[in-house]
Amino acid sequence: MLHFDSDYMRGAHPEVMRRLMETNLSQSVGYGSDEYTARAAGLILDACGLNRSESKVVFLTGGTQTNSTVIDSFTQRHQGVICAETGHINVHEAGAVEATGHKVLTLPSHEGKICATELDNYISDFFRDETWEHMVAPGMVYISFPTELGTIYTLKELEDISKVCHSHGITLYLDGARLGYGLAASNEVTLHDIARLCDVFYIGGTKVGTLFGEAVVVKDAARWLHSLSQVKRHGALLAKGRLLGIQFETLFTDDLYLRASRNAIVQAMKLKEGFLAAGFRLFMDSPTNQQFFILPNERLDALKETATFELWGPRGPEETPVRFVTDWGTTDEEIERLLIQLR
Amino acid sequence: MLHFDSDYMRGAHPEVMRRLMETNLSQSVGYGSDEYTARAAGLILDACGLNRSESKVVFLTGGTQTNSTVIDSFTQRHQGVICAETGHINVHEAGAVEATGHKVLTLPSHEGKICATELDNYISDFFRDETWEHMVAPGMVYISFPTELGTIYTLKELEDISKVCHSHGITLYLDGARLGYGLAASNEVTLHDIARLCDVFYIGGTKVGTLFGEAVVVKDAARWLHSLSQVKRHGALLAKGRLLGIQFETLFTDDLYLRASRNAIVQAMKLKEGFLAAGFRLFMDSPTNQQFFILPNERLDALKETATFELWGPRGPEETPVRFVTDWGTTDEEIERLLIQLR
Amino acid sequence: MLHFDSDYMRGAHPEVMRRLMETNLSQSVGYGSDEYTARAAGLILDACGLNRSESKVVFLTGGTQTNSTVIDSFTQRHQGVICAETGHINVHEAGAVEATGHKVLTLPSHEGKICATELDNYISDFFRDETWEHMVAPGMVYISFPTELGTIYTLKELEDISKVCHSHGITLYLDGARLGYGLAASNEVTLHDIARLCDVFYIGGTKVGTLFGEAVVVKDAARWLHSLSQVKRHGALLAKGRLLGIQFETLFTDDLYLRASRNAIVQAMKLKEGFLAAGFRLFMDSPTNQQFFILPNERLDALKETATFELWGPRGPEETPVRFVTDWGTTDEEIERLLIQLR
Amino acid sequence: MLHFDSDYMRGAHPEVMRRLMETNLSQSVGYGSDEYTARAAGLILDACGLNRSESKVVFLTGGTQTNSTVIDSFTQRHQGVICAETGHINVHEAGAVEATGHKVLTLPSHEGKICATELDNYISDFFRDETWEHMVAPGMVYISFPTELGTIYTLKELEDISKVCHSHGITLYLDGARLGYGLAASNEVTLHDIARLCDVFYIGGTKVGTLFGEAVVVKDAARWLHSLSQVKRHGALLAKGRLLGIQFETLFTDDLYLRASRNAIVQAMKLKEGFLAAGFRLFMDSPTNQQFFILPNERLDALKETATFELWGPRGPEETPVRFVTDWGTTDEEIERLLIQLR
Repeated sequence: MLHFDSDYMRGAHPEVMRRLMETNLSQSVGYGSDEYTARAAGLILDACGLNRSESKVVFLTGGTQTNSTVIDSFTQRHQGVICAETGHINVHEAGAVEATGHKVLTLPSHEGKICATELDNYISDFFRDETWEHMVAPGMVYISFPTELGTIYTLKELEDISKVCHSHGITLYLDGARLGYGLAASNEVTLHDIARLCDVFYIGGTKVGTLFGEAVVVKDAARWLHSLSQVKRHGALLAKGRLLGIQFETLFTDDLYLRASRNAIVQAMKLKEGFLAAGFRLFMDSPTNQQFFILPNERLDALKETATFELWGPRGPEETPVRFVTDWGTTDEEIERLLIQLR
Repeated sequence: MLHFDSDYMRGAHPEVMRRLMETNLSQSVGYGSDEYTARAAGLILDACGLNRSESKVVFLTGGTQTNSTVIDSFTQRHQGVICAETGHINVHEAGAVEATGHKVLTLPSHEGKICATELDNYISDFFRDETWEHMVAPGMVYISFPTELGTIYTLKELEDISKVCHSHGITLYLDGARLGYGLAASNEVTLHDIARLCDVFYIGGTKVGTLFGEAVVVKDAARWLHSLSQVKRHGALLAKGRLLGIQFETLFTDDLYLRASRNAIVQAMKLKEGFLAAGFRLFMDSPTNQQFFILPNERLDALKETATFELWGPRGPEETPVRFVTDWGTTDEEIERLLIQLR
Repeated sequence: MLHFDSDYMRGAHPEVMRRLMETNLSQSVGYGSDEYTARAAGLILDACGLNRSESKVVFLTGGTQTNSTVIDSFTQRHQGVICAETGHINVHEAGAVEATGHKVLTLPSHEGKICATELDNYISDFFRDETWEHMVAPGMVYISFPTELGTIYTLKELEDISKVCHSHGITLYLDGARLGYGLAASNEVTLHDIARLCDVFYIGGTKVGTLFGEAVVVKDAARWLHSLSQVKRHGALLAKGRLLGIQFETLFTDDLYLRASRNAIVQAMKLKEGFLAAGFRLFMDSPTNQQFFILPNERLDALKETATFELWGPRGPEETPVRFVTDWGTTDEEIERLLIQLR
Repeated sequence: MLHFDSDYMRGAHPEVMRRLMETNLSQSVGYGSDEYTARAAGLILDACGLNRSESKVVFLTGGTQTNSTVIDSFTQRHQGVICAETGHINVHEAGAVEATGHKVLTLPSHEGKICATELDNYISDFFRDETWEHMVAPGMVYISFPTELGTIYTLKELEDISKVCHSHGITLYLDGARLGYGLAASNEVTLHDIARLCDVFYIGGTKVGTLFGEAVVVKDAARWLHSLSQVKRHGALLAKGRLLGIQFETLFTDDLYLRASRNAIVQAMKLKEGFLAAGFRLFMDSPTNQQFFILPNERLDALKETATFELWGPRGPEETPVRFVTDWGTTDEEIERLLIQLR
């Protein structure tokens, strides 16, 4: 059976596993004070073009945990966080953000993206209302790159959103659960751009080569003093913190993070071409490792015997949208076997 | 340099790592719905003498996370949790329990343990007070086994505490971050006893052989419906849930959990005898893998050149209490090298 | 200057003030254990057609406080509350519901009301999704009567919503901040209907005759044990609880609550007729004490010199929607003076 | 029957009620934007010797609500609040502080007071511990004046505590639920001193002359921007905010707050002398309106037929501590009648 349900179905990149094995029986201090973690943070800041003494990296275990911890730490208590209606924090985090006391404020989703003009209008209208203190004030904007629908912002779009946020004194936070796949798919946006335009963002490991782990990059380290206390208070501090350090040190050595990411994009493009060549329609045109098609129900049922994948919405009377996901480990053979089934 | 600071300084038991490597490139569904996790849960319930259809196991990543998620899930909103003053949730969790809205109510610590009679009096006095609804009602009792001071409850003590809790309709929760070491050290308390006397408890992996992971055992599964939502809402749901399943399946195959635990106790006893033979005094007599001694400051400083360990309290004018910790991976050679330094 | 901004601009109904004065220097026990409060609760249950031994009344001070306390107390931690997009809890409570950890889930607003069919579809679709445990499950439905836009549900609409909620095991909660005005305006819905169809609701005092105070009616008292602890924990327990008892005892003696409410409706209808007669258009046709008109900007500016009222949305280029509110104390003379200005 | 249970058993001071009656049918804008509230705030700042443009006053309804709102607003999320073990927030607020996510950290109580030296040691030791970020950092110190045991700090004690707090950068908050009674009882501490030494404190109305209401004084107004949002989010914003303004304007006109407070002290001293003259012992020597005696059980039972009062702890085998409380409205006749019973 082939599996295209998601990008968290395999373990870790073989290079990452090799390093975990090599270091396994050695001993280190806990909670991220070890040297692997220090080196990983340095490598990440270098890759972002950030200054090691002004910026910092905080490692957490998973995406929902990272989102709720960061949002709670970078907003004031009476503030909420703006995102697209389709944003992960609004839909698929079981209320983890609200559990910390913050409202999620939604803007229309344009294939997963928010629009800088609509954002500007929302914020301006909000503070123009004389009774705004009776409502939840926006304190942060959350965007994902790539989005939950596989799309990516253009450089211009990111610059516009960043400008809107900063003109209103609002923090811009980017969820990079699949950041590598977004960067590998974009022909213009780089990690330097992300670091330049956002106040805080995370580089996803769970979906891009590690067993688990997300690296939160904080441009102005002074904005997150006592991050250890905040992370621990959220139940998000890993005792054997070096596991995060070792994994990210490996990913950010010899450009492994981008190299591994590129494989997913190459395989996704082959998959897209295969589906199109077989006469299927796109449900949405995604440049990243999530691909969306519309399948006639009989073909869908037939395909289910060879491969697992997600229905993207309820089954229709005749045809149904579906999602196929590739990752750093997807092989030529897997794609080939799938495409054979399609023909 | 030798390291005796804590029991989370190494990676995972070699058997555990071997299984993670073997399964690494295979694919599984996420969030703990995989077959490894199902098998691990079954093995754990068997080891506890619990019925697979009545009880359940929920896997989380770390101890503080587990404590705050369990306490929040098994108490009503207006209830607090009773523990010893020295309880981990009261001292070393950065307020993670209070972050979920629950007060920690303390009883005196008797070398880390609470006393059943004092517990009974506390609860009886509380509800006898006509104004109790203005105060925080106890809804749960939290004990640790072994305690934070390395001590373990006798079977009689556990039975008495359990009886007090259940006579008042209060949930008994046992923090088993180091459960293996407690069971290996006790000549009477078994996993069956723990499962019989507690309503919910966790079997610690992080300190006893895994990279990370704690297995929460819920005796009456109906008391934690929708645990997935609760765990996710706390940011504690691991995407690659199988990592927890694989590790615990390994630990609960061929009795590895207890075998690995016993090594720590054997080494700790050699260490204790060595210190006593060298003329040092015990700070506290612990039967488990944490050993506490009083060292003259000059000997302490000399020892620091060969080994790392924790000061247990502030440095005194002439002598200072210290803690040495062994674990599943402590070798004969490590102990031998340390004891040579002592002589 | 005339004031039509809101229905909380005056003190209390003269009858209520008279009773507060009469009882002022007497002494009572605190926190709602006094005899005034007991009598008020009894009178309210009688007026609702509920059984004094099965149902209970809990008195709080204000609306936002009541909403967040009730929602937090009647939902499980992982559950959210469904309401219309225009619902007060979604818009104008500064995130008080999210502050207790619960997400507000929105349905389209039909002039402030939700539609039973849309509600049924939302809930059915939600639980049909295999991944629902990753999302916020609906545990309660919140409706307001009258709505924030002055409209009221028909009896049939309430019955349908109630049926949908109970078929899914979901609690129906009705915000009655202006309940008296809704009942006075409806020619079919009675307090008995509200009590029959909802699980919990509150009878608003602040806007309908008291200085402050809302009476929460809980149909099945067993569903809110330890309400005192919950109310106190939310900072909502009034020390001099008798003030709530005295005020509500007065309102529910000799039908004062409905008599006082009817005045607001009579005056509102005169006001509506006056605006229509003067040639203005309705912005929305409301049967209750909130009236919405569209005014040409020059007439609006002229009117501002005699009366205060709210703009209902941003000022338009030529005309602007406005809201005028009457209350239990609005006099014939006030309406007359306003209508003179209109002509 | 005479009542000495507490100081919240009567309504409001007749002057306060008179003003509420006079203004009852007039109309004002809501939520504290009215002119009564503005005037009350000004009068209070004047009475405190604070600058109207640098400091601010925020009015809330009750004590527990005020404590949880202020503590949540003036601490960072990972910080807790230090108080005496007997502190109201630690004992009698049903966990309202923890409900906002903050731990209450306790120091020994010296007849209700904390000791500046012990406070200094606690804070110094805390931050000297290398692992402090794993524990709850103190961010605020909470003291009550008078304390829950009727005692009051000397000026020197307040100055020392203030110095300790500020040398560590920690906010000093004073709970003045009974502030008037404390000031009336002290021969040295003035409202100017309180304002000079604390960062934030509240002037209690509920127990000192109003129907309800507490006035929070914030020395540096910039430390509580957007207080309206915070207060509303806590469910603590009164719609008819002018009720607070009118009551406090009355109390701070012609020194009524202190005049009314003094009556309680005068009556309390007569009561104390009467008990002593009748041969009873003090349980604690309090200079304020709470008086504590030890009564032989038979005398206690006899007294219960004429007067209500609180047992201060469980009934002893032969004698029992009791509390008698006077207030602004206690009359000579009430005291006289009680003392007759004693003889």
